[in-house]
Amino acid sequence: MLIMKNLQTRLLSFSKERDWEQFHSPKNLVMALSAEVGELTEIFQWLTEEQSAALPKDKLEKVKEEIGDIQIYLARLADRLGIDPIEAAHSKIEKNKKKYPISKAKGIAKKYTEFRK
Amino acid sequence: MLIMKNLQTRLLSFSKERDWEQFHSPKNLVMALSAEVGELTEIFQWLTEEQSAALPKDKLEKVKEEIGDIQIYLARLADRLGIDPIEAAHSKIEKNKKKYPISKAKGIAKKYTEFRK
Amino acid sequence: MLIMKNLQTRLLSFSKERDWEQFHSPKNLVMALSAEVGELTEIFQWLTEEQSAALPKDKLEKVKEEIGDIQIYLARLADRLGIDPIEAAHSKIEKNKKKYPISKAKGIAKKYTEFRK
Amino acid sequence: MLIMKNLQTRLLSFSKERDWEQFHSPKNLVMALSAEVGELTEIFQWLTEEQSAALPKDKLEKVKEEIGDIQIYLARLADRLGIDPIEAAHSKIEKNKKKYPISKAKGIAKKYTEFRK
Repeated sequence: MLIMKNLQTRLLSFSKERDWEQFHSPKNLVMALSAEVGELTEIFQWLTEEQSAALPKDKLEKVKEEIGDIQIYLARLADRLGIDPIEAAHSKIEKNKKKYPISKAKGIAKKYTEFRK
Repeated sequence: MLIMKNLQTRLLSFSKERDWEQFHSPKNLVMALSAEVGELTEIFQWLTEEQSAALPKDKLEKVKEEIGDIQIYLARLADRLGIDPIEAAHSKIEKNKKKYPISKAKGIAKKYTEFRK
Repeated sequence: MLIMKNLQTRLLSFSKERDWEQFHSPKNLVMALSAEVGELTEIFQWLTEEQSAALPKDKLEKVKEEIGDIQIYLARLADRLGIDPIEAAHSKIEKNKKKYPISKAKGIAKKYTEFRK
Repeated sequence: MLIMKNLQTRLLSFSKERDWEQFHSPKNLVMALSAEVGELTEIFQWLTEEQSAALPKDKLEKVKEEIGDIQIYLARLADRLGIDPIEAAHSKIEKNKKKYPISKAKGIAKKYTEFRK
């Protein structure tokens, strides 16, 4: 059940049953994904970093819902483009290993393009 | 390998090796997630919906990278909060089934709060 | 020169000279605005709140550029829809005065819908 | 009244009266700005480009409110950093004139970094 492909298949059915495929162009799905991230951001905007790591139960439940929404649109978008987001994440980690070697990146929150400076 | 938990564990190691845990408050991870969605949005902003569904190979490769980045930060954020994003997605689908019954939602891209109108 | 209408007029000329009006649907301009906010977010994502209030000169210059980009797309979008964003801001402040009366909102960073709770 | 500086001054009073300055670090204001852009995005996500240019009156009113919110947080953020967003926009247009000369950019929605290709 908790396999990405299963989620993507389920979302496709959900969308087809409602005749929503017509709205789900990749462009539109990117906007929907972005709007959901906006809702997540709203929850965190006035919290300190410490507070963000110790959410009360009702806020945590709300955050879980938003994470669900974001994962839904990310999975749908990826499915429309023939991409597995988990596989894409692992590919990106391989790249990041080269861009952020431990020797240079340790304890430093800089973009790799700033290492040269 | 393509299991969410494995991705989360791998990301935790990646972060710990680089001493990056200090930067990964949920608040900061939400911002990082949001910035990555911004990069994805930039790719799609001037495309028509049709163009967005027929990306040339180099753009598709770039999109895959951004989807990877988004999945990375979503998985990391969820891990910090003890959430499995795939499970959260399925929970949300259950809710959406009630909010968007086929009889009311078919072919209509409205928010459920607008059904009453 | 620093009048919103002048900025909007200048942006319209800039766009027309480049034959870019064809790309500037309100939908696309919203995405462009969102992508620029993503770039701003990236600058701030790993900073503490304190660091964000004491940016070194080069970061501040970068932030100014991003604020410029955001203002550009906000002004363009508003212009396409016949809206003056400064006037819209003042209208919203009038509404916020009612939603957030000083007596209830003082020192509290809650959404007005949470006051009842 | 419709001068940016006046808006910034009014927002500062609004915030001070409510003792909200403590929440308005630049980092937090960036998040608030981003969340408002998310709300704007939600309005446009399923619209075609054509529909986005012909909004019904109630949607247009909602869009005006969101544009107001975005302008509010952009003005506040800029004020905290000593920046005039209109002036920043004009500075950016000067740069864009060089990055996007009419001869190269006419009718082409590409990023300037792609011109070389």
